[in-house]
Amino acid sequence: MSAKDFFHNAVRLALEKDGWLVTDDPLYFRLTALVKIRIDLGAEKLIGAEKDNQKIAVEVKSFIGLSAISEFHTAIGQFLNYRLALEQEDYERVLYLAISKDIHQEFFTDTFIQNVLERYNIKLLVFDIQKEEIVLWKH
Amino acid sequence: MSAKDFFHNAVRLALEKDGWLVTDDPLYFRLTALVKIRIDLGAEKLIGAEKDNQKIAVEVKSFIGLSAISEFHTAIGQFLNYRLALEQEDYERVLYLAISKDIHQEFFTDTFIQNVLERYNIKLLVFDIQKEEIVLWKH
Repeated sequence: MSAKDFFHNAVRLALEKDGWLVTDDPLYFRLTALVKIRIDLGAEKLIGAEKDNQKIAVEVKSFIGLSAISEFHTAIGQFLNYRLALEQEDYERVLYLAISKDIHQEFFTDTFIQNVLERYNIKLLVFDIQKEEIVLWKH
Repeated sequence: MSAKDFFHNAVRLALEKDGWLVTDDPLYFRLTALVKIRIDLGAEKLIGAEKDNQKIAVEVKSFIGLSAISEFHTAIGQFLNYRLALEQEDYERVLYLAISKDIHQEFFTDTFIQNVLERYNIKLLVFDIQKEEIVLWKH
């Protein structure tokens, strides 16, 4: 199993432990006719889930590459683009960025990173990769 | 010369032909103390230029990789993060995303891409890579 799949599956299990029904794995939607055939190249697959009439989409980022800041650029761009596409297609579904407890403590506590999250209203789901449990929601 | 450097140099020459004084190549600024040592890993270097009391920073993107949409995610995240960092350090300097005429015609005319540019107020500088000339500014 690739590291990307390992993180993806841990988040899926964590959501289920938290009482969410995983309805779409992966969640398909299209950005646009022009780019739909290219959407999956290199991108993480989203998880769609529901609980108590709430619908969410979850973008899982492992941050296990060489450069956390480079991965952060990509994560933010992907998040904002996906959120805009979801607004047009499925406006009730709220998008979350899922990151591990470790990267949250080591990197997301940085002032600049927090400014970005606040400016663009990025919602976080923080999970424990070992316990496969959600430890924090930042709405 | 790498493809990245080739595009970077073409934009620098195009700016000079357009009467800009290139003051910083690369333009250094820091995102934050935590991440400054990692800023250059994989990221394009910015060009700083001035003309008639205007100061700009230019992020050059080649879009010559396998997946234009993946590069677009990264370009948007990097642009928005750099713009936020510039606001804090050098608020007069306006950030532009430089792309070639070809990718502008083939990819940036897409409705979804245009929605993203409008939503996040992404300013474009479109250049002709062969002629090393600026063909369009989108402010």
